[in-house]
Amino acid sequence: MHDMHPTNDPNLESFVEVDSDSHFPIQNLPYGVARSKDDGEVFICTAIGNYVVNLTELDATGVFDGPELDGKPVFRERTLNTFMELGRSAWAEARSYISTLLSADEPALRDNQPLRERVLTPMNEVEMLLPVDIGDYTDFYSSEQHATNVGSMFRDPENALKPNWKHLPVGYHGRASSVVISGTELHRPQGQILPPESDDTPIFSECKLCDFELEMGFLTGPGNELGSPISVKDAEDHIFGLMLVNDWSARDIQKWEYQPLGPFLAKNWATSVSPWIVTLDALEPFRMEGPEQDPEPLPYLKSEGNWTFDINLDVFLQSENMDQPHKICASNAKNLYWNIAQQLAHHTVTGCNVRPGDLYASGTISGEEKSSYGSMLELSWKGTDPIELPNGESRTFLEDGDEVTMTGYADTDEYRIGFGEVKGKILPAKELEE
Amino acid sequence: MHDMHPTNDPNLESFVEVDSDSHFPIQNLPYGVARSKDDGEVFICTAIGNYVVNLTELDATGVFDGPELDGKPVFRERTLNTFMELGRSAWAEARSYISTLLSADEPALRDNQPLRERVLTPMNEVEMLLPVDIGDYTDFYSSEQHATNVGSMFRDPENALKPNWKHLPVGYHGRASSVVISGTELHRPQGQILPPESDDTPIFSECKLCDFELEMGFLTGPGNELGSPISVKDAEDHIFGLMLVNDWSARDIQKWEYQPLGPFLAKNWATSVSPWIVTLDALEPFRMEGPEQDPEPLPYLKSEGNWTFDINLDVFLQSENMDQPHKICASNAKNLYWNIAQQLAHHTVTGCNVRPGDLYASGTISGEEKSSYGSMLELSWKGTDPIELPNGESRTFLEDGDEVTMTGYADTDEYRIGFGEVKGKILPAKELEE
Repeated sequence: MHDMHPTNDPNLESFVEVDSDSHFPIQNLPYGVARSKDDGEVFICTAIGNYVVNLTELDATGVFDGPELDGKPVFRERTLNTFMELGRSAWAEARSYISTLLSADEPALRDNQPLRERVLTPMNEVEMLLPVDIGDYTDFYSSEQHATNVGSMFRDPENALKPNWKHLPVGYHGRASSVVISGTELHRPQGQILPPESDDTPIFSECKLCDFELEMGFLTGPGNELGSPISVKDAEDHIFGLMLVNDWSARDIQKWEYQPLGPFLAKNWATSVSPWIVTLDALEPFRMEGPEQDPEPLPYLKSEGNWTFDINLDVFLQSENMDQPHKICASNAKNLYWNIAQQLAHHTVTGCNVRPGDLYASGTISGEEKSSYGSMLELSWKGTDPIELPNGESRTFLEDGDEVTMTGYADTDEYRIGFGEVKGKILPAKELEE
Repeated sequence: MHDMHPTNDPNLESFVEVDSDSHFPIQNLPYGVARSKDDGEVFICTAIGNYVVNLTELDATGVFDGPELDGKPVFRERTLNTFMELGRSAWAEARSYISTLLSADEPALRDNQPLRERVLTPMNEVEMLLPVDIGDYTDFYSSEQHATNVGSMFRDPENALKPNWKHLPVGYHGRASSVVISGTELHRPQGQILPPESDDTPIFSECKLCDFELEMGFLTGPGNELGSPISVKDAEDHIFGLMLVNDWSARDIQKWEYQPLGPFLAKNWATSVSPWIVTLDALEPFRMEGPEQDPEPLPYLKSEGNWTFDINLDVFLQSENMDQPHKICASNAKNLYWNIAQQLAHHTVTGCNVRPGDLYASGTISGEEKSSYGSMLELSWKGTDPIELPNGESRTFLEDGDEVTMTGYADTDEYRIGFGEVKGKILPAKELEE
């Protein structure tokens, strides 16, 4: 099994059947962590068609001579952090090996029925878990249209962007503990909000302006030492892959609390992520030139090469009275002004250290068309223009029982590279203990 | 060895000699993690006089029947997280046991010379490490005088506090990866700042307004489930102890970046903490009534009992040309408007989950007197009133080579409970790689 081939070759096929619109052809090979519904076993895996492939088992049985750190096989751990720490050459080697193993021409797994039964599990027979221990979570604000929309609604349409916005990727530190996996249901948060009749005396209330934010996130592999920035040109060595992020937001809590230190409780009650991390290698065919940046960024932020990604991003809403999800937003990852190499270089330019498994979200990704706005706040224009749903209901913000599903995928003529989905439902607020 | 006694009894003495002004009498028993300079061994410890006491070794040798989680002895780990997770009754039991073991009346360790040599190490023969894995780091803004000073300098002395300030403990998420142990030297950060002649076109520069912030932090033990807030009255079950925090700040980077999402790079280059966690039990004698809160907080923020601590906090500065540190600030932890029970209840009221080892800093603690202001920004009043040093130098902000030392201690008539110190030196900015 030494016949390695380019893992993005569009002619490459797997012996596992993959539908043409599947998110998981052999050119994808994302990473995740699954728990078997059958025996509770937790394992690192990749996806092919409708199956997860147990990389922990492949490593343990010796079929796959998996990556190691200090002699320890990293695919036998319960998260991807150590694998991510290994860096690009180890990632490329693992990808190449897995690609070969799953290819139609390679008999090692294809013709070993008992092994196939052990390592290939239908997706509906596993529960996907958070694939990494997220040390720190950062959230940027890098879509110009989103920042413009928010600035127009809350400040002044003539000066929607703050003076710093085009000079640096504005961002803030988020809460890592409450990053949850797709499917986690969330109680509507409670806190201080201003009643309509007051601008300085809050009440305690459940959040009435509950929202999602359509974002993408990247994760770092190898980190840096405190005091040693990562340059834009080295970013490629540090970025492992991307995932979908829903940065749930309580707009009314945010409005009252956020001056002068930024969003805090409005965002800390949950951030949902998709289970699959799609690697930079798999996304190679979808890299494209970014938007013109004017004014020209300072030298430490000037990026070379293509760091913008052409990834379709859709948001669906399903209320409790609907039979199926209804698409309410179609955006694209290319609607970002600041790219991930710039974000990482900016984040570390003071010397801030990053670690394997840290997560960096893009901020809400809105395009120019109203149909591509990435939050209820923008779609309903602060509640003034309700979103009509096909069953006759309408929405300005999220109501109890609403389920939000985000999905992302990139197409070539031959195949689709997908992120799966990130899903979450808003449950009624919990009664507080006395 | 079953003769347990109140661990705060002022008459209690250890067989280890303890000077009257020592931070570490037998009534303290803080927790830390040390590495032997001799053999590199890392162990959990407490402090008594000028010695650290190796709790890992005491546990391993069976002298001390230490706390366990699921049968695993938590004192044999390399951080305190698991011990902190165990909760108050385990903390009380361990404290009582260690107190007895170190007391003058108890022969088990006192009369066992070989064991004493193994477990008692002079402090200068160990290096103290970060005692916990900090999952998330939050920074509050809870000193009224500090918030008033900052608001007066940057906005309007007549409306120095934002309307939300007296209704909720304003806070934001900080960066956990760059929390470092006392003694860590730090390169002056670089980033975007506005030159004097412009208010919208930044330059890349080293930080020129480098500052410290005098803070205290608390750490949580047992966490909560996502969606289930911790009430003010339950806070006591979740708070393990306190430490000193220096929240280093780049004022010029902050001024340009912080709108609208709060401080980001200005704070992410380092936060220094003291090595010892002083437990709530040891601080019991220093609890006092807090300030009157007007307007009355909403019910979820109303705290009962004494949650304010009378702890003296001093800051010393030593330039490269000085022979010894010079005290530039004398404050006190009682100068906080919002207390730690309120901070924790507020943090979690949306359902945000906290975990063992999470850190929550108070924000800069400034008192009413100018000599008690907890940052250079305030002490030099934005650089307009330089601080004179005894050797004829003066300072508005920190210069290269300046070392800042913070210390904290609480006194009874009979003994002193101290936090040791948190120290850090500013090194010149590093040249960036091309």
